Amino acid sequence: MIENSKLGQIRALCFDVFGTVVDWRTTVIRELELFGSEQEIKADWSEFADRWRTEGYMGGMRLVQEGSLAFQSADALHLRMLNILLEEIGFDVKNNLATVDHLNRVWHRLQPWPDSVAGLENLRSNFIVSTLSNGNMSLLTNMAKYSNLRWDVILSAEITGAFKPNPECYKNAANLLGLNTDEVMLVAAHEGDLLAAEAVGFSTAYIFRPDEYGTDNTKVLKPDLPFDFIANDFNHLAEILAAHKIN
Amino acid sequence: MIENSKLGQIRALCFDVFGTVVDWRTTVIRELELFGSEQEIKADWSEFADRWRTEGYMGGMRLVQEGSLAFQSADALHLRMLNILLEEIGFDVKNNLATVDHLNRVWHRLQPWPDSVAGLENLRSNFIVSTLSNGNMSLLTNMAKYSNLRWDVILSAEITGAFKPNPECYKNAANLLGLNTDEVMLVAAHEGDLLAAEAVGFSTAYIFRPDEYGTDNTKVLKPDLPFDFIANDFNHLAEILAAHKIN
Repeated sequence: MIENSKLGQIRALCFDVFGTVVDWRTTVIRELELFGSEQEIKADWSEFADRWRTEGYMGGMRLVQEGSLAFQSADALHLRMLNILLEEIGFDVKNNLATVDHLNRVWHRLQPWPDSVAGLENLRSNFIVSTLSNGNMSLLTNMAKYSNLRWDVILSAEITGAFKPNPECYKNAANLLGLNTDEVMLVAAHEGDLLAAEAVGFSTAYIFRPDEYGTDNTKVLKPDLPFDFIANDFNHLAEILAAHKIN
Repeated sequence: MIENSKLGQIRALCFDVFGTVVDWRTTVIRELELFGSEQEIKADWSEFADRWRTEGYMGGMRLVQEGSLAFQSADALHLRMLNILLEEIGFDVKNNLATVDHLNRVWHRLQPWPDSVAGLENLRSNFIVSTLSNGNMSLLTNMAKYSNLRWDVILSAEITGAFKPNPECYKNAANLLGLNTDEVMLVAAHEGDLLAAEAVGFSTAYIFRPDEYGTDNTKVLKPDLPFDFIANDFNHLAEILAAHKIN
């Protein structure tokens, strides 16, 4: 938590994307079900989606952070795990490369949360709005175009060559925006991301997205989260910032 | 010039910015005149603007290409020359740092050519539209916001750490867009930029901007320019691409 005088300096909002701006799980499960029906394969597609995300993407990034895997794009990490998961269910990956590539790009076609498009546009009238995602530049660009998310600029871990929560990722984003870190706020649904941003001097806004892991989840808002703002969605955040005259 | 089969593959248009999208000279002269009137300084502001551009920015980039100056942002190159030019006309730079900084950022506030905003939006319906400029990321981001230029993604020499016409600059842009170089077209008002892009496999569209160096200039369209398309402005380019069924 930071002193109030600093909050008045905020010029740019950097957004985490997967889970914060877009509902990755619903879109991925829907496309996997479609794939299963076209290919006549039965599988637990929710579990497939969760393992793709957790073991493939997050696990892959952990290997990169530890130094046991070279830095690579989110697309590459996704493809690595998709091949493993498809082979487990007996799909012939080698003779269906175009199908696999299309499926891998489901992460370029994720649907926003209901408030995201309008909420971003609302916030964009007072701040520079930017992505700050571990997704690669083309993934974020294609997603924005596909889902009509209007960013002032797209920033990604790919530009830094290091994934969040590496501090260089946040520092480089501020640098590319021509701002000091205390002029930037990270908006995210994930505590670790926000804590890492705060450690380099960013302000922080936590967005409560209880349905990121499904509506049968029972995620509750933790009390006393150590962030500058807590909001239910992007329009709520805009209201809170306006009420604090931060714009 | 490239074979027609390749043109059908174009997925993204990368735009040079200074002179191609924005009329840098008119805006810079206007702000310099305002500065002169506020500070009660008389000078030849057109010559000031031209030297700022030619000796400062283009000369600075040449020093970087030759290796006698470290890579730095366009903002830094602009400030380096602005200080020299202001000292020449007797302005006290050291005691007016905020004024100098504001003036240096005139390059963040450049006005688009009359067709640019609508023409870009027109082209954006069929292609990914991106900057590919030697201007730094924050300069391009602020300019887009200020002038309502809607880019799908902002790419800059700053990300590569090398200025155009270094081939790495174009190759890295294609790479960040997730495309092969033959899926990208450079749109520019400058032959050297287009030739360098063509050399790495980009398609090319030359935009004739005769007024870049002032309306008293008598620039004429050269015959037999070796580019895929020649257009008078962005809407004209959209018409030409549609007539060739490239969309």
